[in-house]
Amino acid sequence: MKSIVRFSVSLEKQLLQEFDRHTRLEKYPTRSKAVVDLIREKLVRKEWEHGTEVAGTITLVYDHHGSKLMETLTCIQHDFHHIILASQHIHLDHNNCLEVVVVRGVPGEVKRLSDLLRATKGVKFANLSMATTGKIL
Amino acid sequence: MKSIVRFSVSLEKQLLQEFDRHTRLEKYPTRSKAVVDLIREKLVRKEWEHGTEVAGTITLVYDHHGSKLMETLTCIQHDFHHIILASQHIHLDHNNCLEVVVVRGVPGEVKRLSDLLRATKGVKFANLSMATTGKIL
Amino acid sequence: MKSIVRFSVSLEKQLLQEFDRHTRLEKYPTRSKAVVDLIREKLVRKEWEHGTEVAGTITLVYDHHGSKLMETLTCIQHDFHHIILASQHIHLDHNNCLEVVVVRGVPGEVKRLSDLLRATKGVKFANLSMATTGKIL
Amino acid sequence: MKSIVRFSVSLEKQLLQEFDRHTRLEKYPTRSKAVVDLIREKLVRKEWEHGTEVAGTITLVYDHHGSKLMETLTCIQHDFHHIILASQHIHLDHNNCLEVVVVRGVPGEVKRLSDLLRATKGVKFANLSMATTGKIL
Repeated sequence: MKSIVRFSVSLEKQLLQEFDRHTRLEKYPTRSKAVVDLIREKLVRKEWEHGTEVAGTITLVYDHHGSKLMETLTCIQHDFHHIILASQHIHLDHNNCLEVVVVRGVPGEVKRLSDLLRATKGVKFANLSMATTGKIL
Repeated sequence: MKSIVRFSVSLEKQLLQEFDRHTRLEKYPTRSKAVVDLIREKLVRKEWEHGTEVAGTITLVYDHHGSKLMETLTCIQHDFHHIILASQHIHLDHNNCLEVVVVRGVPGEVKRLSDLLRATKGVKFANLSMATTGKIL
Repeated sequence: MKSIVRFSVSLEKQLLQEFDRHTRLEKYPTRSKAVVDLIREKLVRKEWEHGTEVAGTITLVYDHHGSKLMETLTCIQHDFHHIILASQHIHLDHNNCLEVVVVRGVPGEVKRLSDLLRATKGVKFANLSMATTGKIL
Repeated sequence: MKSIVRFSVSLEKQLLQEFDRHTRLEKYPTRSKAVVDLIREKLVRKEWEHGTEVAGTITLVYDHHGSKLMETLTCIQHDFHHIILASQHIHLDHNNCLEVVVVRGVPGEVKRLSDLLRATKGVKFANLSMATTGKIL
């Protein structure tokens, strides 16, 4: 069972009003949730800088007609099978595929996998989304 | 059939050597691929600023024990079904789930969906990865 | 006289401990200051997206031997004199200069100035640091 | 005397047209300058990750009425005098000041200075702009 604690923050009235205005626009149910999300985002950035285990997603866009491209991508992914949790393939149009690879591991190794996939001939775009295992959040 | 063109770039020798050193570390097969990737990344950023159709992935992390959380997330996603291509659910541990929602649509609407999911009570983390439909790339 | 208000935030104990650990490393005097800084950073990002007046700095690095480069940079800056507050010039070494241009104005116009300076032949690097007039903060 | 080299890049015609369209909007004089700038930006990012000497600017916004704030900021800056090249102070309005500190040194130490200034009570905003000494560019 997780224990909930409470602390208070002091700031200028005008600043708080402006913050409330923006979080209302983003449909936040409470101010507390909006503030805690900023705290969580900061901690997730720190996990990627200094942490030992992160989760994330690598988004790839490629033309599947590329010579042996899908084979190459599969081989690279197998070399990193210990950090890959799942992958999903979307047919964007006749030529273009979007593939999402969900990963969990040491930040450096996750980045290396993302670099390798991006560098592969035929891959048009690769992007690493830095998320979290959620453990400390 | 796509037509390939060729153009040349002039720069200082030392700068090119340094660039080659980094792209080798990232396992790029050719210098041309590394340069074209920089061009593509720039164009994808522009698509998100000014374009009419983008693709991307929204990564969510949440504790599925949250009261009616999964129902709420599903309802929101149904409101945006016209821009959602697929979604995938990963069980990270006993409590935490990672969900990847693949989207295609107008940049503003995709961002609104990402904001709404992030603001939902119980969602610990949400991140929009700005990718591309691949059409102009 | 600015009026100070107070509000409270609820979160899991473990999450707060982790946040405190990081803000201590960054030498924050109080938790409240660390949280309010996250709020201010969010509002500054929003000012640059939707606001009417922002402040910032454009950092340029160039080799002053470039043909008529300094003249060109000065001409461009004069065209934008209404948004430029000051500029400062540092001699990095025999060839390289670093120039900081402090700007205040509409976000779009500030970005246009930054783009123009970056595109100038001879400029090696230009970067826009998105700060704030401090009014609502 | 720096030696200039030339290399060529192959890509799809449509992609090149799109790139040219954007660089024209940004007033780039030549395509080559636009491409080399992307290369330089990548190398500057790498310098901040792995390099031994970088240059940059720290932009601060604060209310100078803060108790002993200016003294504290000056003390911190003196502790880092070996990496500070210059600083400039702008009076934004009756209360708010914008200060730009130009720095050169090891990335980690520059970031530590930026963190310390940001954490100081009374500082509303601090931002580190990651530029370059220009040496390898």
